Amino acid sequence: MGSLYPHYEEENYSFNTANLLNPEEFRRQGHMIIDFIADYYQNMEKYPVLSQVQPDYLAQLLPKSTPNIPEPIETILHDIQQYIIPGITHWQSPNYFAYFPSSGSIAGFLGEVLSTGFNVVGFNWISSPAATELEFVTMDWLGQMLGLPQSFLFSGTGGGVIQGTTCEAILCTLVAARDQMLAKVGRENMGKLVIYGSDQTHCALLKAAKVAGLECKNFRAIKTMRSTAFQLSAESLRTTIRLDVEAGLIPAFLCATIGTTSTTAVDPIRSLSEVTKEYGMWIHVDAAYAGSACICPEYRHFIDGAENVNSFSFNAHKWFFTTLDCCCLWVKDPGALTKSLSASAEFLKNNASDSKQVVDYKDWQITLSRRFRSMKLWLVLRSYGVENLRNFLRSHVKMAKRFQQLVESDNRFEVVVPRNFAMVSFRVLPTTLKKEPNGCKSESGNICK
Amino acid sequence: MGSLYPHYEEENYSFNTANLLNPEEFRRQGHMIIDFIADYYQNMEKYPVLSQVQPDYLAQLLPKSTPNIPEPIETILHDIQQYIIPGITHWQSPNYFAYFPSSGSIAGFLGEVLSTGFNVVGFNWISSPAATELEFVTMDWLGQMLGLPQSFLFSGTGGGVIQGTTCEAILCTLVAARDQMLAKVGRENMGKLVIYGSDQTHCALLKAAKVAGLECKNFRAIKTMRSTAFQLSAESLRTTIRLDVEAGLIPAFLCATIGTTSTTAVDPIRSLSEVTKEYGMWIHVDAAYAGSACICPEYRHFIDGAENVNSFSFNAHKWFFTTLDCCCLWVKDPGALTKSLSASAEFLKNNASDSKQVVDYKDWQITLSRRFRSMKLWLVLRSYGVENLRNFLRSHVKMAKRFQQLVESDNRFEVVVPRNFAMVSFRVLPTTLKKEPNGCKSESGNICK
Repeated sequence: MGSLYPHYEEENYSFNTANLLNPEEFRRQGHMIIDFIADYYQNMEKYPVLSQVQPDYLAQLLPKSTPNIPEPIETILHDIQQYIIPGITHWQSPNYFAYFPSSGSIAGFLGEVLSTGFNVVGFNWISSPAATELEFVTMDWLGQMLGLPQSFLFSGTGGGVIQGTTCEAILCTLVAARDQMLAKVGRENMGKLVIYGSDQTHCALLKAAKVAGLECKNFRAIKTMRSTAFQLSAESLRTTIRLDVEAGLIPAFLCATIGTTSTTAVDPIRSLSEVTKEYGMWIHVDAAYAGSACICPEYRHFIDGAENVNSFSFNAHKWFFTTLDCCCLWVKDPGALTKSLSASAEFLKNNASDSKQVVDYKDWQITLSRRFRSMKLWLVLRSYGVENLRNFLRSHVKMAKRFQQLVESDNRFEVVVPRNFAMVSFRVLPTTLKKEPNGCKSESGNICK
Repeated sequence: MGSLYPHYEEENYSFNTANLLNPEEFRRQGHMIIDFIADYYQNMEKYPVLSQVQPDYLAQLLPKSTPNIPEPIETILHDIQQYIIPGITHWQSPNYFAYFPSSGSIAGFLGEVLSTGFNVVGFNWISSPAATELEFVTMDWLGQMLGLPQSFLFSGTGGGVIQGTTCEAILCTLVAARDQMLAKVGRENMGKLVIYGSDQTHCALLKAAKVAGLECKNFRAIKTMRSTAFQLSAESLRTTIRLDVEAGLIPAFLCATIGTTSTTAVDPIRSLSEVTKEYGMWIHVDAAYAGSACICPEYRHFIDGAENVNSFSFNAHKWFFTTLDCCCLWVKDPGALTKSLSASAEFLKNNASDSKQVVDYKDWQITLSRRFRSMKLWLVLRSYGVENLRNFLRSHVKMAKRFQQLVESDNRFEVVVPRNFAMVSFRVLPTTLKKEPNGCKSESGNICK
């Protein structure tokens, strides 16, 4: 114990904050929490998947201010059961089908808990070398599984970093691309930079462009069509860019998507990258949902051409059994990121950073402080192994195929676009709705509206 | 269980991913992890606080690629003990004195674990009403404890949001301030906006300005002096602003700090806000470290004048017993944030959002997805209560006072600036270093260099 503690005790302080992590009390309460969560998983199917509460329900149930005196964990857990769980939409339920899959796993959970236990703030190498080094080891492992070229790996000339979400990955790469282009054309031309995506690209791109100070009027959501499965075509991109260049604007950034949010459309990276190359633009691949599937050899073709892009990201918290948040971003030129995002201060100086032999991830992201996120990803990779992980993903795709067959064999419904991964876009046919204006009754008696 | 499962089982899928959260296996492994972390806390003082590893140590110890087959949790925990813990700099150690205090607590840990267990992605209200509502209840509780005026609370006309870190809080408010000013002066004037801080302001401000596309040449780190305890004076600010305005520039944003990183200097909010008001600028208060102390009536005066600022943030993960990350940000005009940061898409539409009766926190921050961070803050508030929380902070300050006395009573050292909170800025006197060029030997025989 530190040398200050004898004085501390001598003076009879009534509150010893060292006790806030008292191991025996930690053990007692920690086991209670594990049992609470295990019971929650056991009872999950008893709850309605979508929370049924009304707006402002909780403020009515809770006190108006912080209690003055401590409350025991038993009371708090009772309140969580009574007041919080009814307000949860159960993302981990096997019956949850909104947004993206509920892909929590024991390994992902344990990894998050371990990193919470260590509670290190790994902004630079010295602040906890293991946090940085496990991240670059894990990102290289995962990059290899995806068949990313050496130019994206630390063992090659690039590198990977774990961001919180795709929004951050897009913002970081967009800022790097913006500054790279402005270094060529002059900062006074910022208002001329143009950002490209398709009308299926996630709204994260427009938001990132706004945050980065780029002009909304220079944002292009290029039209896609159902007949070509909502893919962004290289021709449309080229046509749009030409018009912009003729108007004196400067094409700067394209975000291509592998597995769009609405229909899991796949933009053709190889042909798009041929266009961006001509204009010296940055091309980022947002594979937030579908990237994980590309660890299976039979789906790897969806990211063919990845060797030609500048950056590539996917969310391990979406469909890779890792709890929120865990967005894996690889870049070919880490220097482009760090040129835009590095921060320095007297209080951050240390020999390891000065030696330039270490990675300081604070310079690869928006924030300075960062959690030890690689722990959960490493636990997922080791606890399941490559073969199982592939098979988990395949089993999801197989379920989706089976569901697709069911939809296709029922003439009240139609599948809207071809299924690529584990999501089926389908609808009730307008003709069915006309016939059965109050909804269609399925054979098993369920009503779908 | 969902209606798809019978088919699933019929077809003899070899991998049932539902098992990835099997409650009994979860319980077994969960209890192991709690014991592992409890043992880590128990043994913490056996480890050197600062990790002693050399750069690239971990890559040498770990395999070059992901294992093909699963590895048991026992093996992984063994490796964490052998390979990871030596690479940890122990932020939770009672002997850790770098950067900011290691203020983890059992309640903070449990809250984080619960939110990991629920693993909800609370971007909007409907995605888990409890996650949103507990956040605004908790932020109001905490705002009251700080004596923030009603204009910052949901129960008044403002509101609070939990960001990851201060970097995000500054970036969000800076972007809102930028857009608010550009709406007045025209977007073509973006290159004229000026951002102000002191030479003691955290590097997060410059980084945020760069990300937001503002000009580095329009960034003012106003000089402070030791004789005035490194405070930013209203006069210096006014002088600097006047010069900028004369040069045709547009003052847009001031970041004032309560408890700077290097010396815990306190900028005088009231007098600074009188200056910013004259120019219609946004003033943000970064109380990252010292904000928590202001829940004690005797320290509340440090944020006098808070009613005049636009936004106020402090990190509960710094000195408020909450694990990383948990930055509490209050704003007077939530509309200013959401005008700049809202994102919409077909797949996000829902009746609750359309009704405008709910808060959708995705529009208050950089990212769309967000963790259920209020859970840990709520647990900290309830588990300890207002009186204990105040006393914990007071006990830290008391320890610092005692340390200060020890330093002051030793003529080889000096205290550099007056102590405000629980940090003492001191140095070995240059004269001591001259006398004892190999370091000074203290009476107890410790060498300090």
